[in-house]
Amino acid sequence: MSVKQIANLIADDLDRVEEAIATHLESDVSFISEVSNYVLSSGGKRIRPVLLILCARLGNYVSERVYDLCTVIEFIHTATLLHDDVIDNAHLRRGNPTVNARWGNEISILIGDYLYAKAMELSLQDKDHLVMETVARVTKEMAKGQVIETLKERDLSISEDDYYRIIALKTAALFEGSCTIGSLAAGLSPQQRAHVSAFGYHLGLAFQMADDTLDFVAPEATLGKPVNNDLKEGKITLPVIMALPLATEAEVALIDAYLQNPDATDTDFQAVIDILNQYGTLQSTMAKAQAQVEMAKAQLVDFPPSTALETLLTLADYVTTRNV
Amino acid sequence: MSVKQIANLIADDLDRVEEAIATHLESDVSFISEVSNYVLSSGGKRIRPVLLILCARLGNYVSERVYDLCTVIEFIHTATLLHDDVIDNAHLRRGNPTVNARWGNEISILIGDYLYAKAMELSLQDKDHLVMETVARVTKEMAKGQVIETLKERDLSISEDDYYRIIALKTAALFEGSCTIGSLAAGLSPQQRAHVSAFGYHLGLAFQMADDTLDFVAPEATLGKPVNNDLKEGKITLPVIMALPLATEAEVALIDAYLQNPDATDTDFQAVIDILNQYGTLQSTMAKAQAQVEMAKAQLVDFPPSTALETLLTLADYVTTRNV
Repeated sequence: MSVKQIANLIADDLDRVEEAIATHLESDVSFISEVSNYVLSSGGKRIRPVLLILCARLGNYVSERVYDLCTVIEFIHTATLLHDDVIDNAHLRRGNPTVNARWGNEISILIGDYLYAKAMELSLQDKDHLVMETVARVTKEMAKGQVIETLKERDLSISEDDYYRIIALKTAALFEGSCTIGSLAAGLSPQQRAHVSAFGYHLGLAFQMADDTLDFVAPEATLGKPVNNDLKEGKITLPVIMALPLATEAEVALIDAYLQNPDATDTDFQAVIDILNQYGTLQSTMAKAQAQVEMAKAQLVDFPPSTALETLLTLADYVTTRNV
Repeated sequence: MSVKQIANLIADDLDRVEEAIATHLESDVSFISEVSNYVLSSGGKRIRPVLLILCARLGNYVSERVYDLCTVIEFIHTATLLHDDVIDNAHLRRGNPTVNARWGNEISILIGDYLYAKAMELSLQDKDHLVMETVARVTKEMAKGQVIETLKERDLSISEDDYYRIIALKTAALFEGSCTIGSLAAGLSPQQRAHVSAFGYHLGLAFQMADDTLDFVAPEATLGKPVNNDLKEGKITLPVIMALPLATEAEVALIDAYLQNPDATDTDFQAVIDILNQYGTLQSTMAKAQAQVEMAKAQLVDFPPSTALETLLTLADYVTTRNV
């Protein structure tokens, strides 16, 4: 099953999610709708809403709730992108100019704030206290993860533990939250919910590890943004972290020089990649991502067979086999 | 009664608010506590918590709830300051370097996001759905108001209606929200609550109008930040809006030139002030602010006499008589 086939399986649901997103973006300030629509319809994969819906389909799926909850998750995700792009001074996302590139940093910050608040407001409409708490907690954890990431920028002493802590907070928390909220909407038992949440958590870790590998190897056209944003911005991810203790002093110095040089060239970058390839850390990062996928899938062993379950397991594999 | 005397009247409450703020700033990431403490203990007037407490004292004051709710309001206020300072590229606030000046834009944005989310999480602990809704709605309205303000930057066609809409959203909403939440915590009747909310709304308008006047006339040492940030940043406030239809073409051109010139000098600024003084619009803005104070106070006529009531009325007058 490809991700396209997965999407086809829940195509009607996804159409309804798009409708819900469009409805909740309506504002008496047309500019807010315009900018929000621009960023929200720029070809995001909607992987978090898909997870939420599929987890809800493991239980008593109630469609009316689910679409609004998908909107909550997608608004939070989009708000973080809007703030990230200001922080990273990014100019392209998914092949399009970023909001900050097109309308300026203030608009990107403020529409991000607006979407956070709107997400919170929508989560309250659900009236399920656990849903609201999950939304607020996840939002807090994402900010916390990004703070820690910022503190560790260009710091070669960053450990694997630091890395896992960062990606758990900045990425896995929202994957876990999407699955938790899906299972809450579907009335799964607390025990089932714990498994579904853990599934989302491990999948989120795998997703970020795959992302961090793709940042080194995917061609720019595939990513829709410049290749190797991360290291240029001083973000030291697992492929580099694992290479550092294996590398020679000269190699470490080369990586350090790359991190400190805002004018580093493609040739300089290729030299870094050569080091990672020499120690095989791009492959070993993907292997660790695949191990997280297996841990995710293992959480679902006690659920009875269903299309939703099968689709979730396929989606899990997609996370490490995608090229974008 | 001076604001110091007002503060003395509820000094114990305010001490407890500071304790609650400090408690809720504790984080396993010590840097988050450090930065949050830096900005939250930099001499803010705590006017919104004071309003919340006094409104709660109009009814059945329950201290345990009130301190946490004050924290919610102050976190939201602080989050907007952190994002504002990035947007405005501000270097000083209350006489101290801003967070963005000291730790960079990314930290200011992210700690702002963290405080928003933490405020939302705390508001959920209150378990009163109306409190949560108020918090989410106010946060959304503040972002909306700032978006509209940004759209109207350097636009001399901005109307008085535009101005009132902007300050209603960006400032009055949180004043109103603080009073609403105080009255919810105190179990006031819906009718009493409507009056208390309207009191906060009008007071918020007056506060912002006074702020916008002080931005032209207060000495830098009093403000703790450079005088006339607003017009330099392209923000056209009521004193200018009211002067424009009265001014000659040459005077309008002079104001426009000031708005377009990032290198405008103090002499250029004095020329703008001379125009405002010629048409008396700094005074008329303050008169309109005072009229809002009277509208605020009129909302409280049916409340029985109490120290809290008297203090609220005094606080209302302070809003237009303060010099900082």
